Amino acid sequence: MTTSTAATGSADDAEALVATTARAARQAQRVLAGLNRERKDAALHALADALTARTEAILAANAQDLERARESGMKPGLIDRLALSTDRIAAIADSLREIAALPDPVGEIVDGQTLPNGLRVRRVRVPLGVVGMIYEARPNVTVDVAALTLKSGNAVVLRGGSAAAATNAAIITVLRDALAAAGLPADLVTTVDPAGRAGATALMHARGLIDVLVPRGGAGLIRAVVEESSVPVIETGSGNCHVYVDAAADLAAAVDIIVNAKTQRVGVCNAAETLLVHRSAASAYLPAAADALWERGVTLHADAAARACLEEQAAAQGRAELLVEATEADWETEYGSLDLAVRVVDTIDDAIAHITAYSTGHTEAVLTQDVTAMNRFVAGVDSAAIMVNASTRFTDGGQLGLGAELGISTQKLHARGPMGLAALTTTKWVVEGEGHVRP
Amino acid sequence: MTTSTAATGSADDAEALVATTARAARQAQRVLAGLNRERKDAALHALADALTARTEAILAANAQDLERARESGMKPGLIDRLALSTDRIAAIADSLREIAALPDPVGEIVDGQTLPNGLRVRRVRVPLGVVGMIYEARPNVTVDVAALTLKSGNAVVLRGGSAAAATNAAIITVLRDALAAAGLPADLVTTVDPAGRAGATALMHARGLIDVLVPRGGAGLIRAVVEESSVPVIETGSGNCHVYVDAAADLAAAVDIIVNAKTQRVGVCNAAETLLVHRSAASAYLPAAADALWERGVTLHADAAARACLEEQAAAQGRAELLVEATEADWETEYGSLDLAVRVVDTIDDAIAHITAYSTGHTEAVLTQDVTAMNRFVAGVDSAAIMVNASTRFTDGGQLGLGAELGISTQKLHARGPMGLAALTTTKWVVEGEGHVRP
Repeated sequence: MTTSTAATGSADDAEALVATTARAARQAQRVLAGLNRERKDAALHALADALTARTEAILAANAQDLERARESGMKPGLIDRLALSTDRIAAIADSLREIAALPDPVGEIVDGQTLPNGLRVRRVRVPLGVVGMIYEARPNVTVDVAALTLKSGNAVVLRGGSAAAATNAAIITVLRDALAAAGLPADLVTTVDPAGRAGATALMHARGLIDVLVPRGGAGLIRAVVEESSVPVIETGSGNCHVYVDAAADLAAAVDIIVNAKTQRVGVCNAAETLLVHRSAASAYLPAAADALWERGVTLHADAAARACLEEQAAAQGRAELLVEATEADWETEYGSLDLAVRVVDTIDDAIAHITAYSTGHTEAVLTQDVTAMNRFVAGVDSAAIMVNASTRFTDGGQLGLGAELGISTQKLHARGPMGLAALTTTKWVVEGEGHVRP
Repeated sequence: MTTSTAATGSADDAEALVATTARAARQAQRVLAGLNRERKDAALHALADALTARTEAILAANAQDLERARESGMKPGLIDRLALSTDRIAAIADSLREIAALPDPVGEIVDGQTLPNGLRVRRVRVPLGVVGMIYEARPNVTVDVAALTLKSGNAVVLRGGSAAAATNAAIITVLRDALAAAGLPADLVTTVDPAGRAGATALMHARGLIDVLVPRGGAGLIRAVVEESSVPVIETGSGNCHVYVDAAADLAAAVDIIVNAKTQRVGVCNAAETLLVHRSAASAYLPAAADALWERGVTLHADAAARACLEEQAAAQGRAELLVEATEADWETEYGSLDLAVRVVDTIDDAIAHITAYSTGHTEAVLTQDVTAMNRFVAGVDSAAIMVNASTRFTDGGQLGLGAELGISTQKLHARGPMGLAALTTTKWVVEGEGHVRP
């Protein structure tokens, strides 16, 4: 494997490469499907050890990518996501060992019964087959996805961001060598990076060769894959998440929760972007919430009613610049920054209507001590996750007990919300009879 | 609603109609989501009663469609699928009552746990929202799908085959009137038929307005929807199903099963199309199987080894025309007729390899008394359903205990194999805390 950069080959060449690569992956997957969990977990440990052992080679390749990135003027945030270090590689290797420790989803009997005619029916979890992955320049995703697909019995065909081409090539070489040394087919992890952008397009049209395509990255990348792909896509979405503070909320807890939801980690999809407050709680809640949020540098984009509660306080504290007028655009924006839209609503139904109009369907929180209000919100909001008296930041595979996370789905088919290993499987019906025929 | 035939309006008009219709459907679905099972089941009974009560109006519209169909030279088989009668409408009404009797998938708690930090997590089944349906000229599908979506808490936007336009318009009017009379929103069942073919195309691009699109009909229709649609699709597939008779099969049972799988109902997707026979069973099994199949008029498309077992017998019985030479095309063909491809294989692995190469991934049967062979086949064949010592014809929602059936999925995402009401749902995470914030 060469450390080719973003070569833009012809579409025909890319199609040929994708077809050859996907067929090799399919062969490898069939071998893997016959192996039990012990073999898969041993391979994951071997991959972890190999990554640590070959840290120097990976860092050398990463240095090439970083140099190119700096020359091309890449933003510091993106450079940080591209950069590896000995510690980061060790952390990535540890995450492989954690995936090895998770239960194997393959073979789980999802349900089953014996029918009146004596047929014994069960549905068994099996791998999807060959997973395609299109992602941006984050080398940790290369390892992450290879490990998740291996654990769930799948092969993966990768197409990484071209800015990470040298790093990815080095990592993939390490992974393939380690697979072969562990007695598994190297083609469980393959790449179409040498075909450049045309490789991504060819992956999207490799229906029948690729069983499912998972885009991981920004909203633009995901939308492009969803629109273009004829291969089924598992969409990982963006999050315009809301926190609603009800008339009957525990206001002290509600301050802690909005601070956590907004500021505990900015720029992640489960951070809160809009705070909705019931009118009867506004004058008691908003000043306390604003104090705590302003202290952490959060700018509030507030509607007229919220500003009326806060303007005097902002002026008195010399924080007028942290209180600005909300516009329609604020309700739609996933800031990913220390900004929060704030709106006062007259009823819980108005809160639900606002969420219905503007949410991306990721996570919304209701803060209330009132059972009727809780039930109304849980039933009325159509999002992947509803938090009751808890921070939106809990929508995460690790936090919700799934172990490793493939991403957070905001689509409704196949997987919704945090996706664990089971999202990389399908089921097979197995029906056993004794010469049964249909009457 | 007019009984417009296949008007081919402009693409813009169609997009506008789909947008208006889908938004009205969304409003209606939100009302339905707040109703419990009793209300939904009562509505299903009301729909059934209304169809029976207004049989004459439906038959009058159906007569118009049938006249147009005969004038345009439609094939008798298709005319039969288009034709309604008092008995057929009564049967359709009965199927609604059966759907009412099924358990409600909505509200089912799929799984749940209390996490170490005290958060209580559950995943609850909820409706998908607005389902789009593109189907051919079979009026029973109109009712069927309206009932399945209603029971599962969804609204449906229909685009039926234009040859059934008058019948569908009449049926949809009856359904909408009955919904309104039952106090439910009529817009739970809507159609974009007035937009003609452009309506189908607009449905495929109504991402965000339509939550899932279900094509139902021939392979061509389904492929077109899958290729074109940017809305997520649930694909119902075609079936090139295999029966493998192992060296250790109960040969008498194996004769009954292949006769049932091939002839019990020809032209359905779970009928067998290829018979694979282990070489050591061929000379004992094939003559008996051929006798039974020939008696029912089945033409065997056999490879050289199978012909060697059967040629003498065919000649002696004057049935030489029912034994023809198999070509490569036979392995790939879903006959849907009294034809069966027959191949002798040396090993069970050769049988699995043949299936891997030619199957559409619907249903394959293994007939054996040998545990090792059974396990090898069940693990090695990657199809939606595996039958052990049973006919392929059992792959059916009704037969496998799902009650009503939306179709049989041969895709791997979301639903695989027979799809019941649960295939029309997704899940929502509900997480309850007491002021929990993420550390």
